[in-house]
Amino acid sequence: MGETIKDLTRTHRCGEVSLADAQNKVTIMGWVQKRRDHGGVIFTDIRDRSGIVQVVFNPEQGSKLFEKADTLRSEYVVAIVGEVEARPEGNINPEIATGEIEIKAEELRILDQAKTPPIQIEDDIDTGEDVRLKYRYLDLRRPKMTKLMQLRHQITKTTRDYLSEKGFLEIETPILTKSTPEGARDYLVPSRINQGHFFALPQSPQIFKQLLMVSGLDRYFQIARCFRDEDLRANRQPEFTQIDMELSFVNKEDIFAITEGLMQEIFALADIDLPEQIEWLSYQEAMARFGSDKPDLRFGMELKDLSAVVAESDFNIFSGTVKNGGQVKGINFKGGADSARSVIDGFEDYVKLFKAKGLAWIALKEEGLKSPIAKFLSDSELAAIQQELDAEPGDLLLLVADKPKVVAAALGNLRLKIAHENDLIPVESYKFAWIVDFPLFEYNEDEDRFVAKHHPFTAPVEEDIELLDSDPAAVRADAYDLVLNGEELGGGSIRINNRALQEKVFSALALTPEEQQDKFGFMLEAFEYGTPPHGGIAFGLDRLMMITGRTDSIRDVIAFPKTQRATSPLTDAPSQVAEKQLHELGISIRS
Amino acid sequence: MGETIKDLTRTHRCGEVSLADAQNKVTIMGWVQKRRDHGGVIFTDIRDRSGIVQVVFNPEQGSKLFEKADTLRSEYVVAIVGEVEARPEGNINPEIATGEIEIKAEELRILDQAKTPPIQIEDDIDTGEDVRLKYRYLDLRRPKMTKLMQLRHQITKTTRDYLSEKGFLEIETPILTKSTPEGARDYLVPSRINQGHFFALPQSPQIFKQLLMVSGLDRYFQIARCFRDEDLRANRQPEFTQIDMELSFVNKEDIFAITEGLMQEIFALADIDLPEQIEWLSYQEAMARFGSDKPDLRFGMELKDLSAVVAESDFNIFSGTVKNGGQVKGINFKGGADSARSVIDGFEDYVKLFKAKGLAWIALKEEGLKSPIAKFLSDSELAAIQQELDAEPGDLLLLVADKPKVVAAALGNLRLKIAHENDLIPVESYKFAWIVDFPLFEYNEDEDRFVAKHHPFTAPVEEDIELLDSDPAAVRADAYDLVLNGEELGGGSIRINNRALQEKVFSALALTPEEQQDKFGFMLEAFEYGTPPHGGIAFGLDRLMMITGRTDSIRDVIAFPKTQRATSPLTDAPSQVAEKQLHELGISIRS
Repeated sequence: MGETIKDLTRTHRCGEVSLADAQNKVTIMGWVQKRRDHGGVIFTDIRDRSGIVQVVFNPEQGSKLFEKADTLRSEYVVAIVGEVEARPEGNINPEIATGEIEIKAEELRILDQAKTPPIQIEDDIDTGEDVRLKYRYLDLRRPKMTKLMQLRHQITKTTRDYLSEKGFLEIETPILTKSTPEGARDYLVPSRINQGHFFALPQSPQIFKQLLMVSGLDRYFQIARCFRDEDLRANRQPEFTQIDMELSFVNKEDIFAITEGLMQEIFALADIDLPEQIEWLSYQEAMARFGSDKPDLRFGMELKDLSAVVAESDFNIFSGTVKNGGQVKGINFKGGADSARSVIDGFEDYVKLFKAKGLAWIALKEEGLKSPIAKFLSDSELAAIQQELDAEPGDLLLLVADKPKVVAAALGNLRLKIAHENDLIPVESYKFAWIVDFPLFEYNEDEDRFVAKHHPFTAPVEEDIELLDSDPAAVRADAYDLVLNGEELGGGSIRINNRALQEKVFSALALTPEEQQDKFGFMLEAFEYGTPPHGGIAFGLDRLMMITGRTDSIRDVIAFPKTQRATSPLTDAPSQVAEKQLHELGISIRS
Repeated sequence: MGETIKDLTRTHRCGEVSLADAQNKVTIMGWVQKRRDHGGVIFTDIRDRSGIVQVVFNPEQGSKLFEKADTLRSEYVVAIVGEVEARPEGNINPEIATGEIEIKAEELRILDQAKTPPIQIEDDIDTGEDVRLKYRYLDLRRPKMTKLMQLRHQITKTTRDYLSEKGFLEIETPILTKSTPEGARDYLVPSRINQGHFFALPQSPQIFKQLLMVSGLDRYFQIARCFRDEDLRANRQPEFTQIDMELSFVNKEDIFAITEGLMQEIFALADIDLPEQIEWLSYQEAMARFGSDKPDLRFGMELKDLSAVVAESDFNIFSGTVKNGGQVKGINFKGGADSARSVIDGFEDYVKLFKAKGLAWIALKEEGLKSPIAKFLSDSELAAIQQELDAEPGDLLLLVADKPKVVAAALGNLRLKIAHENDLIPVESYKFAWIVDFPLFEYNEDEDRFVAKHHPFTAPVEEDIELLDSDPAAVRADAYDLVLNGEELGGGSIRINNRALQEKVFSALALTPEEQQDKFGFMLEAFEYGTPPHGGIAFGLDRLMMITGRTDSIRDVIAFPKTQRATSPLTDAPSQVAEKQLHELGISIRS
């Protein structure tokens, strides 16, 4: 049993004691970070959330106190009363905030003892992630992790302050809701009272936030937990958090202005400046120049269209592709001409992952041009290719001929791979862009039907509504994504606010009237009672945290994350449950 | 399809247009609340979240505009551009904020039409709750409901501002977590990746918030969604929201101070003042005087102990009860002497619900004392009873003789029933109290073992720790509830921060070492690595909302609540799901 703190009051957090407190008596409480004995005196660093402070136990203060201090070990929890003293000139530690002072201990209470922890409580450790997650309560003691939790609090607080100021109401939407078999896989919750029926955990509050606009609540936001039962990729979690908002009586420009103001405040917490005005890129242009709808704008190496240059070439692989509606495009790996053959082979293997049939290359070496395809191209074609790609001696030109979608994916990804492998991306560079004018529909070849590029509630751009019947593939969505450094920070759209148009879009998505009624009947009905023009946007808080917290693991920014197998090594969730529980729910485990 | 707002910008919310805007052009957007034609002019009230404003369409402004205005029906969504004009003296409406002005319409756009809604969009309606929940998006348009949603936003915002100011960090804890078969019934979520295993939705973040204290995060809060799969009583919901906090290095007095500050700010939003200092009542005293650990202090009618007075009575029902360790107690229903016999019989039936064997009564009528038990009592006993109960002519004295627990429940509840039925409770009276010194354990006769009065992590009062072995029933918990007007607003405790003590308490609760390890092993282990003294408290946000919002239905304070059958008439959740989904989860429905 530890000693009592009943009669003590903490006066300072450890990291907050300063020279201004010199000669004053203070009471601090925290963990023993380290202890060392020097010249018959015991020096300890005491740590709490705010930082560390040095406490000195001197035998002159009494042998009982000194003997007690001699029992201190790492991670013991202590309360210390003592006088703050300025450190002598030579002992000042400029690396910590409290480095100008130390506390001369007068009283020590040991509030709890501690075993040697399985994780070092310091920033740079190489402990495996499994151990860190099992002992998460120790991992979170590390200053780096503590700071990430503080940053997360600051970001959500800043978001709430900002949006409240702009007239948004935070409104909670249900966690136990209805399964909507569009989108990702739902987590299901069996109902005990209504056996054979299931709730679903929400993939997003989309439907509810639109209903709140029908309710006239005008501006809604929520920092909302969302759930997707997917096989987990590296930085996905079964439950994640979204900054979610919806506004009535607005255009996308209004939403952009509010969002940019919010991002400015959030990124300022991490000393990252936003540009005065975030640039807009159409989906078409982003795909054309970067092969991606979330382009990384921190470096060049843009995709150049060589189709016109090779359309009449004798090299049939190029000219034939163009004739069949395909493209020939290339990128210029500056200074890459001397890449080993194995490296170039690696590039080719890589583009094949994106269904490209092959990768053509032209190396502009000092000693002259080297390329397996040069012999099939005329001098003027070779010259035009170099000119289009702004090529100089030393460059490596990489070309793909294929369907536009394959060319974009292959070269867009190759561009990123080369940039990452060759350190072409400047550090601490932040390039934002709005991507607009997405297509409303995307053709799904497997299912032989159109699917929604965003989701089925997205409004078409007003001018394109008339194309819904005649040329659905050409209809642009009034949708937008905010991208940063090749990542999608968030996305949203202006929504459909009219039953007839919503039905038309559902039909274009090949939903039968029965399916529309079954899945979205209540939504269609809501649209009949006076629905305002509205739109919204949602941001992944966990990704915002990773960027502002400058970490590349999503598990660093969530207090109690799950593994990639969707388990918690800390609590052992998910776990087996009593047969009685399943019986009450009217379900059984398939054998 | 509605008209566009692309080229329009709303300049004011409806309720915010004022005399200061006179002669200015404004653009408002909202719903047609009502429309009336008078003297060849069309008057409409346009409504949004902020209130209503009157818009006038005059044929002089052009016949096309007037004809369009003539098509307006209730709940049409419109945008109106017009000039603000002061109303002539006689037409001022002091009942609405915008009653001094009207808008002379110059342009009207119909953004969406509307069918006649199945709910009147006004405060006082008698529409059944089922209809209100099915058309929740219309119900929320009613000003009363809109205001409740605004109040909920204000309360959570105020809570976050206040706690952030006090150094708390808001930290999200998992929704997909581990089933803990203590407490209420868990909602379960089958795991697809780990078939045969289940997540549970949290009944509270208790374990995680304590682990955050082990992590050194010092002060945690969360406005947390919690889940209980219980048969629903009137004001329970399957998912509900808790203002949840936990602090390190504090005593309960520190927690009281922070809580009182928070309550002050929350109740101020509803113009309710808190006392300078909230009074403390021990559990013992609350039970003795009010028969309840959440006493309603707005009125008297306290329970008086008559045991000493009747201990030697010839009336064996009284004296025998006292001799067997029971009690005789009474309450005084002032002015109730003339209650009809059927009313008194009703009281007796009522106390029997709480296991009382009967109810004795003494009516002090004008014409003399009337009582079926008077003949068994001596004059001095009768006089002493009247004196203890402060009785006067006109009073009705109601007595119960039974085990202390039964007496408290019977008279405590009868006291409330009489007060409610006879309007003895002053309106707009708010009486707060801290209830302290709860017993740590409660004996459960059915299970023949002690159970935790609060939860098993609650610390015993320091001085009582030594009684854990010798007299567990006498051990007081370092726990507290904040009660208001007979309702528990919230409760909490100082927690155990030491493995040995935690094990001792688990053992007193008859958990075997194996069960302790299986259920709480990770928690016990965490306590070994240096755990600070800590404690916390949690408040039911929905109940706070009901009190401050002055409504008696929990379903009024939640945007999308469920029925008492735990269903959503709006979305039809829970619903049947595809067999494929169950198959993927490895579960089946029992037939």
